[in-house]
Amino acid sequence: MTTPPPAEVGAPLSDVDTPALIIDLDAFERNLARMAERAAAFPGLRVRPHAKTHKSPAIAHRQIAHGAVGLCCQKVGEAEVMVAGGIGDVLVTNQVVGDHKLARLAALARQARIGVCVDDPGNVDALSAAMVEVGAEIDVYVEIDVGQGRCGVAPGADTAALAARVADRDGLRFAGLQAYHGAAQHIRDHAERAAAIADAVEAVQASQRALAERGLETARVTGAGTGSWPIEAGSGVYDEIQPGSYIFMDVDYARVCDEQGAPLAESWEHSLFVHARVMSAGTPGRAVVDAGHKAAAVDSGFPAPFDLDGAEFVGASDEHGALAVPHNAGPAVGTLLRLVPGHCDPTVNLHDWYVGIRGGLPDGRVECLWPVAARGALR
Amino acid sequence: MTTPPPAEVGAPLSDVDTPALIIDLDAFERNLARMAERAAAFPGLRVRPHAKTHKSPAIAHRQIAHGAVGLCCQKVGEAEVMVAGGIGDVLVTNQVVGDHKLARLAALARQARIGVCVDDPGNVDALSAAMVEVGAEIDVYVEIDVGQGRCGVAPGADTAALAARVADRDGLRFAGLQAYHGAAQHIRDHAERAAAIADAVEAVQASQRALAERGLETARVTGAGTGSWPIEAGSGVYDEIQPGSYIFMDVDYARVCDEQGAPLAESWEHSLFVHARVMSAGTPGRAVVDAGHKAAAVDSGFPAPFDLDGAEFVGASDEHGALAVPHNAGPAVGTLLRLVPGHCDPTVNLHDWYVGIRGGLPDGRVECLWPVAARGALR
Repeated sequence: MTTPPPAEVGAPLSDVDTPALIIDLDAFERNLARMAERAAAFPGLRVRPHAKTHKSPAIAHRQIAHGAVGLCCQKVGEAEVMVAGGIGDVLVTNQVVGDHKLARLAALARQARIGVCVDDPGNVDALSAAMVEVGAEIDVYVEIDVGQGRCGVAPGADTAALAARVADRDGLRFAGLQAYHGAAQHIRDHAERAAAIADAVEAVQASQRALAERGLETARVTGAGTGSWPIEAGSGVYDEIQPGSYIFMDVDYARVCDEQGAPLAESWEHSLFVHARVMSAGTPGRAVVDAGHKAAAVDSGFPAPFDLDGAEFVGASDEHGALAVPHNAGPAVGTLLRLVPGHCDPTVNLHDWYVGIRGGLPDGRVECLWPVAARGALR
Repeated sequence: MTTPPPAEVGAPLSDVDTPALIIDLDAFERNLARMAERAAAFPGLRVRPHAKTHKSPAIAHRQIAHGAVGLCCQKVGEAEVMVAGGIGDVLVTNQVVGDHKLARLAALARQARIGVCVDDPGNVDALSAAMVEVGAEIDVYVEIDVGQGRCGVAPGADTAALAARVADRDGLRFAGLQAYHGAAQHIRDHAERAAAIADAVEAVQASQRALAERGLETARVTGAGTGSWPIEAGSGVYDEIQPGSYIFMDVDYARVCDEQGAPLAESWEHSLFVHARVMSAGTPGRAVVDAGHKAAAVDSGFPAPFDLDGAEFVGASDEHGALAVPHNAGPAVGTLLRLVPGHCDPTVNLHDWYVGIRGGLPDGRVECLWPVAARGALR
């Protein structure tokens, strides 16, 4: 049920059908290079970008070429697509629960270096049984709740107890700690964000002490995202970062500010857009585009017009986006424009194809069509 | 890039992998029968259900078998899937703008009875040219802005002028008026909703008078949805209704009240669910399920736990759903439960498969796997 691609390679952007997910390849490649350069300032820092953002082996391989040690995934189905696409090292930054999925995870662990997170003793045992069943081994990270209040065990003794259980089970390698603070990524103010991450660092250190008391070594501490990674990287306790959105940027992350108070949109360029078209413009002050919340996710707020001065996105229905536009200079029916997604990850998941544009917006041409290969891989 | 199905036919619901989109077939069929029965109370009323809700020819054919005259779609891509799936009469309840899409629409109009909406003179001319190019004819409805402030022309003279243009162009049949008030569907209070629809009825009547002055007949008035259709059906001016969500119900529509003040969840049963699993439960008062906003759309609010007493859905990230649960009776890791989608249409669009369950929840078995054939058909 994959939809036909919205364009042909070589076509001008103006000939790409709407709505379509487009990448400004020049901006995207600058983001890739900038992460490699910035991460290199932290000696020994491992970069393991998150594939839940892009769901694309084509993009994953470009991240590997820029020094990434492997990829993160959020679901076994995403990891299957990455491994089938030639990625040899994948960490599922999530708990995997249920016999069907554990069997699939074990099959993957025979084909590639695979990691997974745990926060429950019964799940550790089930994971071990699944690995033993097929003769596989897997890296296991104990997830700490570092302040988000979602998954994870309490830092300290509870973490060490679960790690000891992992170390004791066949088929499992205790690989370290997953210490990701998702909610902190989106805190706008740098000082507040740094305070949240400082708490996460303390949680990691308390857990490391508890591990040492049991004679266990913390092999690795992994976590961090686009919003906070320089803080974790500079903490001295994180070995590996898991940024996803830096390749694309989005409206929500663009509002987060760095240490100098500059929005992250100055660190990472907007490279991902929903290419849309005005489909109705009969009323002064209003224009309707053919991209609603089935084309641009609204969980973190509306998308924003990128190249239509004075326009504001004010409402989304399934297949309509309502723009407030200047009364005397509203766009005509048929006008093409680009929207910056409110949240890049779920927006990508609504599309089957990336249309890669070379030569900038709006005059570039289609250089590539990349499938969103793990779109819908939610199991 | 279609994902593998989450279950095998014949398996018990407990063996369906998570997250998965499931239909309680018994409840679904009762909704189908109830709409046929209720619509029959309005002599001559045509029911044209909206396929943007389900995106499935398998469901469309069941609606036809219950008396529907054809289907509505919101996008050409959806209409292509319906026509290829054997549906012979499809109305695209939307403007279709752009040469690629107009050519596809014209190709469809050679294969089936197709209708489309217009609100712009230039678009009327482009539509005519596309039809003439391939020797096709299409039903054209002038969309009136009946109060939503989205697409549509002003009622009255503007509507009649555009209708006259349609009637004058080759390849186009002026078929009537599209008068759908989307925003009114979700007004909770029946009297307020009825007032909004009364305004829509006046807009239609003003347009009919303007058409008559030009010697044009209003062939048909079409519109209405699950929230308001009995009001339009009883108005004497609407010939056709376009309900979508009645087959599934969702959290948002369940809050809308009917003329007796009863929530619509008493008229239409919840038949669509996201089957999910507790993946983390280490903290008293909290449980995390493996369905976030990539599995259950949050544009109209969170999904709701259907069969876990005292639980409330309080937060969604990409692949996690956070539940507040009773402190001393929280579910264990691995517990299966069902979520009622906040909004059925965009939730369906996140999934590749419907898993049809016969025998009720939670003890039924998989009777069928239906592809969400038009998932992602956003062009």
